[in-house]
This record gives sequence, structure tokens and C-alpha cells, in this order.
Amino acid sequence: MIITIKKNANSEEVKKLIKGLERQGVTAFEIQGSNFDVYGLTGDTSAIDEKAIQAHDCVENVTRIAAKYKLANRLMHPEDTVIDVNGIKIGGQENIVVIGGPCSVENQEMVIKLAQEVKDAGGVMLRGGAYKPRTSPYAFQGMQTQGILAMVEARNKTGLPIVSELMSSDKIEEFEEHVDIIQIGARNMQNFELLKELGKRTTKPILLKRGFSNTIDEWIMSAEYIMASGNEKVILCERGIRTFETETRNTLDLSVIPIIKEKTHLPIIIDPSHATGDWKLVESASLAAVAAGCDGLIIEVHDNPECAFSDGAQCLKPKKFKSLIDKARKIAQVIGRDI
Amino acid sequence: MIITIKKNANSEEVKKLIKGLERQGVTAFEIQGSNFDVYGLTGDTSAIDEKAIQAHDCVENVTRIAAKYKLANRLMHPEDTVIDVNGIKIGGQENIVVIGGPCSVENQEMVIKLAQEVKDAGGVMLRGGAYKPRTSPYAFQGMQTQGILAMVEARNKTGLPIVSELMSSDKIEEFEEHVDIIQIGARNMQNFELLKELGKRTTKPILLKRGFSNTIDEWIMSAEYIMASGNEKVILCERGIRTFETETRNTLDLSVIPIIKEKTHLPIIIDPSHATGDWKLVESASLAAVAAGCDGLIIEVHDNPECAFSDGAQCLKPKKFKSLIDKARKIAQVIGRDI
Amino acid sequence: MIITIKKNANSEEVKKLIKGLERQGVTAFEIQGSNFDVYGLTGDTSAIDEKAIQAHDCVENVTRIAAKYKLANRLMHPEDTVIDVNGIKIGGQENIVVIGGPCSVENQEMVIKLAQEVKDAGGVMLRGGAYKPRTSPYAFQGMQTQGILAMVEARNKTGLPIVSELMSSDKIEEFEEHVDIIQIGARNMQNFELLKELGKRTTKPILLKRGFSNTIDEWIMSAEYIMASGNEKVILCERGIRTFETETRNTLDLSVIPIIKEKTHLPIIIDPSHATGDWKLVESASLAAVAAGCDGLIIEVHDNPECAFSDGAQCLKPKKFKSLIDKARKIAQVIGRDI
Amino acid sequence: MIITIKKNANSEEVKKLIKGLERQGVTAFEIQGSNFDVYGLTGDTSAIDEKAIQAHDCVENVTRIAAKYKLANRLMHPEDTVIDVNGIKIGGQENIVVIGGPCSVENQEMVIKLAQEVKDAGGVMLRGGAYKPRTSPYAFQGMQTQGILAMVEARNKTGLPIVSELMSSDKIEEFEEHVDIIQIGARNMQNFELLKELGKRTTKPILLKRGFSNTIDEWIMSAEYIMASGNEKVILCERGIRTFETETRNTLDLSVIPIIKEKTHLPIIIDPSHATGDWKLVESASLAAVAAGCDGLIIEVHDNPECAFSDGAQCLKPKKFKSLIDKARKIAQVIGRDI
Repeated sequence: MIITIKKNANSEEVKKLIKGLERQGVTAFEIQGSNFDVYGLTGDTSAIDEKAIQAHDCVENVTRIAAKYKLANRLMHPEDTVIDVNGIKIGGQENIVVIGGPCSVENQEMVIKLAQEVKDAGGVMLRGGAYKPRTSPYAFQGMQTQGILAMVEARNKTGLPIVSELMSSDKIEEFEEHVDIIQIGARNMQNFELLKELGKRTTKPILLKRGFSNTIDEWIMSAEYIMASGNEKVILCERGIRTFETETRNTLDLSVIPIIKEKTHLPIIIDPSHATGDWKLVESASLAAVAAGCDGLIIEVHDNPECAFSDGAQCLKPKKFKSLIDKARKIAQVIGRDI
Repeated sequence: MIITIKKNANSEEVKKLIKGLERQGVTAFEIQGSNFDVYGLTGDTSAIDEKAIQAHDCVENVTRIAAKYKLANRLMHPEDTVIDVNGIKIGGQENIVVIGGPCSVENQEMVIKLAQEVKDAGGVMLRGGAYKPRTSPYAFQGMQTQGILAMVEARNKTGLPIVSELMSSDKIEEFEEHVDIIQIGARNMQNFELLKELGKRTTKPILLKRGFSNTIDEWIMSAEYIMASGNEKVILCERGIRTFETETRNTLDLSVIPIIKEKTHLPIIIDPSHATGDWKLVESASLAAVAAGCDGLIIEVHDNPECAFSDGAQCLKPKKFKSLIDKARKIAQVIGRDI
Repeated sequence: MIITIKKNANSEEVKKLIKGLERQGVTAFEIQGSNFDVYGLTGDTSAIDEKAIQAHDCVENVTRIAAKYKLANRLMHPEDTVIDVNGIKIGGQENIVVIGGPCSVENQEMVIKLAQEVKDAGGVMLRGGAYKPRTSPYAFQGMQTQGILAMVEARNKTGLPIVSELMSSDKIEEFEEHVDIIQIGARNMQNFELLKELGKRTTKPILLKRGFSNTIDEWIMSAEYIMASGNEKVILCERGIRTFETETRNTLDLSVIPIIKEKTHLPIIIDPSHATGDWKLVESASLAAVAAGCDGLIIEVHDNPECAFSDGAQCLKPKKFKSLIDKARKIAQVIGRDI
Repeated sequence: MIITIKKNANSEEVKKLIKGLERQGVTAFEIQGSNFDVYGLTGDTSAIDEKAIQAHDCVENVTRIAAKYKLANRLMHPEDTVIDVNGIKIGGQENIVVIGGPCSVENQEMVIKLAQEVKDAGGVMLRGGAYKPRTSPYAFQGMQTQGILAMVEARNKTGLPIVSELMSSDKIEEFEEHVDIIQIGARNMQNFELLKELGKRTTKPILLKRGFSNTIDEWIMSAEYIMASGNEKVILCERGIRTFETETRNTLDLSVIPIIKEKTHLPIIIDPSHATGDWKLVESASLAAVAAGCDGLIIEVHDNPECAFSDGAQCLKPKKFKSLIDKARKIAQVIGRDI
């Protein structure tokens, strides 16, 4: 951590500040500059609060050098984390997983039919929303427990592991019992109370979506919350960030793939459906994501998007989903991987 | 709602789409244009899903005209909502409330002392965090129940009503019992499960902060969630939005004040401390907010910001807080209000 | 164009507004809704000013349906534009071009050596900055005319056509004489006076970078400026947009590729070097861009990035550039194209 | 400047990097940390290129401490710059100027009539566009020289100094002869060639608008360009930044006022008309700007906004403009200033 001190600062105040920091276990070194003096702090700075330092009149600014995350940090865990879900591996240097399914589970028949179509197309897991985060209280809120049970039935028929979104901690036990990967949506990425409970009350892998306005560092810190609370099986999922551009629902940020792989050891998958909000853009984004090095794709598939209960505009029909996987597989092979 | 249809569209598909919509209770009118045909839907469109319409091949785009919110809508409730908190009125055309206090409650003595200083300066309510949403799991997470009880003690001594942030629904009863206004932080603005519980399980007013990357419409829809679930006492609070500018923590968007007042009947208050992240900018932002027409300010105050457990950089000392209120009062009087 | 009128509007004002619009050659159709009335305008609305309509008290809002651009519009020109540069074709369904070279031309030897290395690696054009848009007046501003002449010499030795950035209209004749593609940088994308001069005073193709905070529609309108002034040879170039994320210099928006191809008939190339600002991210972004369907890449290459006069951090060494092209070629082949 | 070096870096490469930097006249000090080593550079670092340092494999990151601007820097010029325009003072601690007028000059009569109305309302300068930066080539491009001459005539009749936007350097002499303040629009804020010419070829004050997606630092660097080229009379003007929010045209960032005053000695004025794009929001934003401490306002005024040739939606009628100034004056007096 680097602290820049104003040249005209009260030297007593500076001395007091530095002593206080040293009492927290770090060592401070001073460099005198022409316009500013600089102190470098070495040692474990993860518990030091930049903002309390910044509050001092004598301080011009504070820069953190070492990341605050530890368990998610590639520096401390150089090996890729590979997460095993009923025998399917997510992460590592080899295979890329494709997860498909409807935005919302609408009834048992549709989800079983879709599960089979996802499997036939080359998908290895089934996604489906039973609890839905809707902007409007008047919109369809999901089939809830019945939706989860319909997914379970689809898994029984097809063997595909199931992924579904959890929205509140009182359902953790339901998800622990029935679901194979617990998804946390973008809007709950910084619901810290929920993150802590996920660490404590489930051993299922967590698919943690990036908040649509969260930095990469904040996202990793949310993974760290879950890991520090006891569950290290975290899969990161980029689903587009909010920008000034309104042509797409969000702007898919594929540069996160190499950055996440450098900073962390966690798997990173891409959701092109929510990122673009338009099925016509999904194939282009999916192939790009695979070429960029992602560990998986999670894609919305629906037999009849015009009648979907939610997000119809971004669903692929099963035939297009298959065609996408076929191309994605060849691109994966170019970069030494496979689907 | 306006639906634009491609000129080369399959007319059977269009007919089917329009019939389906009419079955949902709306009436459709057609206008033939040179490059597109347009259908206008009249009637109650609040339950119609734009994205399902967008999913049709024949559709170029869909534009919603009427807002989806009803209970929060000024059109349907022209009178200002005024919320009474132990005799203090928030909203309306007259007084402006100033709420002050520490970011985190650190111990009982400090919060009692600060409450008295807030009151002496002209503040009418006490804020203080007992449950803290921290980006890092390794940072101070708040005094929790002990913090709430310390706030209660401060209210007993000074008479100031208390405002504190709730982070999960399992504490609603604790807050219902002890707190006068329940604050929902920016990161939980779209924690829809929590919003629904607030509507059902408490009658206390809710201070709903704007998510740092949420549009005004999304923010009002989150208020609508609480209202539609049974609690109409919602106070909106702007605390800055996330932009490309890094000089301030967030960018305070004061244009929301006249916009919220036009679109809704709810009170709107401003948090200049979190918006700017820098105490040196708080006075300027506060005076601007009052001049712009806000119904209140919520400001962080601390006797010793350098030692604050959180967000020290943005705390005002009590003396500066008093000086700010004195200026703000005179500006309020220029525009026909008072503090 | 759709105009929404307030229910309580003065009917005389509405009548006057609609008559005024009809005098501009469009036809208006009315739809009466429950909360609003709606007028649809058909005919050529490209010269109608939304903001003047919006200025009327009776108007709630105005929505444009048809795009304002004509010459760039795919609807009116369904065939792909293919631009021929000394026999190299940019655009269309087949080949993808790779352009390489230094950020700044530093001296004649370096640019000749780099041109040869670019060619050996599989690049088909040479880029190099002679006039440099630098944020600081104290930074290296480019070799200017000497830099252009050094590029010409490199073309003489290698046969590679040259691309360089023009910053002011008084150099158009110099560029017309020496350069094969004239680049317009992101910061000049809305320098409308310059755009008009490019239409009038040169027949060379224009590589028009997207402003880092411009929407897709604004970008196409800037292409339209050049085209409407007489030069239809415009190549669009995405180089990242400005967002809240600070981990990368900009956020590369690859969804523009299918969108530009749907809305316009112009070629679209990608600049991964400026978008990411970090050579370690360039290969991932380049492969993604090819998979997403771009018509070309423009990449910074330098023998000795540590000593580059500008933007060293984002330059690839020639060996890495070659390896990138080799992979990109295989991905191009997967989607039926070639490099 | 602070350079962070990776722990596993090649020590020869580090040595070479540091020696190279010392040859550029700075002194380097080393601090060994647990995860990284840190070098602090002291001396004049303004010409050192961070990106060339960043290009080294051994470097983790580079942080600049001292600002790159000198002439605009408050540290080196503690006194406020006050710019005298025909006896009217812009900047300093006392008066606040209000500039009013139409977006576009439409004919001589209208601008003379408006000038008188602006003056009667309390405005002290006249704004008016003669050369218009329009997104569409098919929109009205301004009256050009005839517009400037109409403004001159309005000055002759009323005595109000005139402000107009310059879009290309070939008109500098026309503006030098006729105009009192030369406005540079947001889209040209980083048209560096134009900025340099303004420094060399005119002594008139420059009103430099902030680019709608430029950081405060970039904005000051553009002022520095003009100043370093010979013209130190720069007035900064905030007109809103581009964010995800679409309810307003741009988001007005009033926190720039205290920040600009801390970092520079230049005057800062606010343009609420372009920032909000909606006349109904202009008064609220103007009063807020005055309360926040701005040195002036520039506001669009039109007798007949519904017929304005451009930007009708954001124009105030003269009567509302007068009422705004009357309120703004009282707020100015609260904070010890006057209008």
C-alpha cells in the first residue's frame, strides 16, 4: 500500500498516522519527493482500511498494491480449480461445458422436452429458472418449488445436472437437496448476507454472476465471501455490464476471461443470452467467448420463444443451439480444447 | 405500447401475434408506414411482456409508453406523500429534514455523543450502521444487534428517531421493534425477495437507496415492489451512480430530484457522503441538493474520522455539519422551504 | 416516428403541432389510448427534428422508428460494400485482413524493419502513427510529414499498403498523395467539419474509429457524414468503449460486429490493442473478434515495446503477432472465411 | 510516480529499467514488500511515459502521483484566474455570470430580440450558435458567417459580449475579429490540433466544454494544451457526462465544481441546458450549480422553443429565464457571492 503525503502536511499528524499503521503490523518506508512524500507499507495490508487513512488531512491519496482477496487469488493457488459436477468437469485446460435451457421453467413437460433437446444438441447441463428476479412485481415470479421439482424430473429422464437461481437464504436447503449448481444472479452479487450463508450452509458449487455494474475486483471479492465462509467451489459467470450503449441489453465484456484467469484460479463461464438480450446476437457472442478462452457457456433455449414466460427475445431454438455448439466445438479445437 | 413490424413480415405471423395480444385484454390499432408498419396497443399493458413480443421474427422493436408502476405513479396519486416519523414529516412542500450520524456504530458512548451533536447542529434524525455491507469479508461487519441497541439508547437520550440499514429478511422483526426508518442499501435495491418481505412484515417507513447502476425506472419499480406487497411508506434516496469518472466515488445525479417529483409522489432525499466519498465535497453537494429541491439530506458525521471503523474519508466533523446546515437552511428559505 | 400526447393536452396546440408536421411532408395517424394519445408519422421523417416536437407542452415523448442514415443503411443497400486497397479487399464474406505496425513511427529503419516482420507474419497492411493525438501537450506528438514519408518508404520495400491517422483537414492533400487508408481517430469521430472535408477532398478509403463514448447510431451517422459529402468508402473500426471498469483501458464491444452488419453494408474491423491497452489481452480479444465475424484486425506491433515512444504496453512483438495470426486463420476457416 | 515490480522478476531487467528512468532525470527509491517490490520516482516525471514502463514484463503496475498539468495547476498558481470580457469578470470569489441565448442563431431579428430579453432578465452575455455540430449531416448546420454577424449586431444594440462555438481552425480569424469568447464544444475537447491553434492564433478567452465522456484529468489536460500553446485565458464548462441513465440527455456532474477549484485556478461554469436536455429540469439544475459554487451559467433561451431550429426541448422562455436568475441571485447571496 502506498500513501502519498502532502508536502505542507503537519509532521506530527503524519508521524501519528504512520505509528498507528505500524501498530497494525505493517512496516512503513518513506520516500521524499519534490511535490509529495510517499510511504510504502509492506506486510499484510488486507485488513487496513484505505478510507480511514484517506480521512487524514495530510494524505493526498492511498493506492493499494496487493489484492485484498486471498482464497481466490492465483498468486497463492497457482493451479486451476476444476469443479466436478456429477462427473462433468468445469475449469482447467481441456473441456468447455455448454449449459442450456429455458429462462423460466413453465411446466414439467416443457422442461423435460427441452432437457432432451439440450442433450441432443451437445449440452451437458440444464439451466432453468424457478425463482425469478423480475424488475416488476406484476410480472411472472416463477413456479418456485414446483419448478425445481420439474427440473429434478428432467434430470431423472436425461441425466443432465441442473442449474437454477437462488434468491434468498431460506431456500438454501431446498437447493442443497435438489439442485446441482446454485446460481446467484447479478442483482444479488453483493447481497453479502446471502453470500455468507452459501459458504456455511451448502457444499454445492455456486455459479456467481457478475453484477451488471460491478468491477472485476468487486466480483472476485464476492467469490471470496463465499470461499471465506466455507465453500470454495465458485464458478464465475460474466453476463454483460451496463454501459451507455442501448443497442444491446448489456455490453458483454470478454476481456474478463484472460483477466480472471490471471488473477484467480476459478472457472469462468459466459452467458451470451442475458448479455445481448437478442437471440440474433447469441451465436456471434458465443463463438467469440470460446475463442477468447472461456470454460463454458450458459445459453437460453426455448422451443417457442414467442410464448416464453420471460426473456423470449433472447432464446435460441434447439436447432440453432445445436448449430452453435457444432461451430463452437471446432473453435475450441483450434485453441487446444474441446466441447 | 407501440410495436413496429418489418415491411417484409409474414402476415400470418403478424395476425397471430396481434390476436394473442388482444386476448390479453388490450386493443390494437394499425398504422401503415413506408418502411415499417406500426401497431399501437391501448388498455392496461402493464402485464404484457415486451420481450415475448420482441421474440417474433416479424417485430422490429417494441416501445412502452405507459409506466409499469401504479402505486408509485404521480399520475394516479397526484398528492405528495408525506411520511410522519415520530412527528417529523418527510416529503411535501415545506420542511427539509437533515439526518446525521456515523457510518458504523462503533460503541454506545460514541453514538450517544454523536446523536447529541447531530441534534445540536440542527439534525432531526440519527443514522448509524449496525449491519454493514462491506466489499471485503475481512472488513469490520458491524456491531449488529448491539449496534441497534446502542442506537436505541441514543434515541432515548436525545429523542432523535433512528435510521439503520437492514441487510436480510431474518432481521425484519428486530428492526420493526427498534428502528424508526429501515434503510435498504444500494446493493439490495433489486433484492426482490427482501423487498417483498418489507411490504409484508413491517409498517415502518423504508428508505430505499438507488442502486449505483440502476435507472430511475428500475428504482421506482423497486419502490413499487414494497408498495404492492403492503407497505406504501417508501422514501427514495439518491447516493450517486457509477460512471467512468474516478475522481469521485460515484457521480451524484441531482436531476433525479425534479424527475422523481414528476413521476412519483414519494419523498426524495440525497446522500452526499456516499455519493462523493470525500468530506471536502459534501458541503457543496448538500447545498446543491437543497437548491435542486430535495426533501432531505442524510450525511455521515463523526468526531474522529481518521479513526472511523468505515468510510472515514467521507465523514464531516460535527462543527462542519452544523455550518453546512446553517447554509442549507438559508438556501431552503430562498426556494420557499425550511430546515 | 411516434409522438405520444398527454391526455390533458390543449387540443388546439396538438392540432397546430400535427399540421406543422404534415406541412413537412409526412402523414399523421392518431391512436387514442387510455393514458395517452399516440400519433404515428409516416413518410420521410429524416429531416424532422424530434427535439422541436419534444419542446411542445402537450408532448410526453417522441420515438424515432426509421434510422436517420440512408447511404450507410443496409435496408437501402443490401449488398456488402467491399473496399479494394491496392488489390486487397476489405469487407464481404470471405477474407479477413490483418493490419499491423507500430503505434508511432519512430524512424525510417524501424518502420521498414517492422513492415517486413508484419508481412512475414501474415499481415497485409502496415499501420503507423505520424501525427499523434496525445492527451498531454508535453508528450511526443509524432514525426509528422517525416513519419508519413518513412511509411511510404516501407511500402516501397514491402508492397504493404499503409494506414495512418489524420488529425486536421489541412493535411488531407498530404494523405491523399501518400497514404492508402486514412484513419480518423476516436477523438475526432464527431469532428464534423473534418468529416465533411474527407467527403469532398479525398477518394481514399476512410477507417473511422468509434468514439470511445459514442453509440452505434452516432457512429453510423458519422460514416453517413463522409458518405453524404462524396466519399462512400468507409471502413468502421471498433476500439473499445469507456465504461466504469478500470482493469482494461476500454471495454471492447464485440456485439457491434453483428449489429453493424445488420444495420449497414460497411466493413467492420477491430482494434484489440487500443481496446485493451495490454498486450497480454490482445490475442484473446483478436481471436474472439474473428470468431464474432469481423472483417479485419488492426494490431500494434513493435520490436521493442519497452522503448516504444507511445503505448508500449499494448504492443505485440512480431513473433507473438505471427502466432496470433496463425490461430486466427484457423478460426476464420471454421466460420467459412480465411486470413 | 510509483512502479510496482513482480517478486519473481528478472533482476537484470529491473536494473535496466530503473537505469533508463534515471537517465531521464528522476531519482528512484526502492521499497521491498512481501508480494511486490516498489520503486518511487522523484523529480519531474511529467515527460515520463507510464505505458512504456508498463510494457516491461517485470512491472505489475505504475501509478502517477503528481498531475501532468502545470500551467493549469492550482499548486503552482494558487490565485484564482479572473478573466475580463469587456469589463465583465469571470472567475474569482465574487460575482457569478449568467450567459443566455438561443441554441442556433436563426435570423438577425430573433437574435437581437433575444439579446434584449436576456439583458432585461439579468444575463450579462449572449450565446448563440452559428456553426452547429449536428449528429446528422441532414440537419440544419447553422447560419455560419451570417450568424456571427447577426450576433455582432445584437452586441451593438445591447452591449452584451457574445459567445459562439468554433468548429475548425480555418475560422479562428473570423472569431478573433468578431466574437468575445470562443466556445469549443464537447465533441472537439480532444481535437488537439484545434486546441494548439487556439493557443497560437487568438487571444480571446476560450470556453472549453468537457467532453461528454472525458475524465476531469483529461479535461484539464485539454486546457493545458491551449495554455501551453500561448493562450492562458481558459474557462471550463461542464455540460453533463454520458452514463447509463437515459431519462436525461446527460448526467450533470456538479461535483466537478469543488474539484476543479481545488486542482486548478481556472473559472468553471455550468451548462444545465445541454446537460439535462429538458427545459423543465433547467431551473433545478441551475440553482444547484450556483449553490455548489460555480462561477457562471450558460443557458439556452428562446421565444418560441417549439419552432427552434435545434434543441427546442431544452430552451427556456425569457420569462422563466428571468425567474431563474432572480432565484439564483438569492442563492448566490447566501454563499457570499452575487449575480
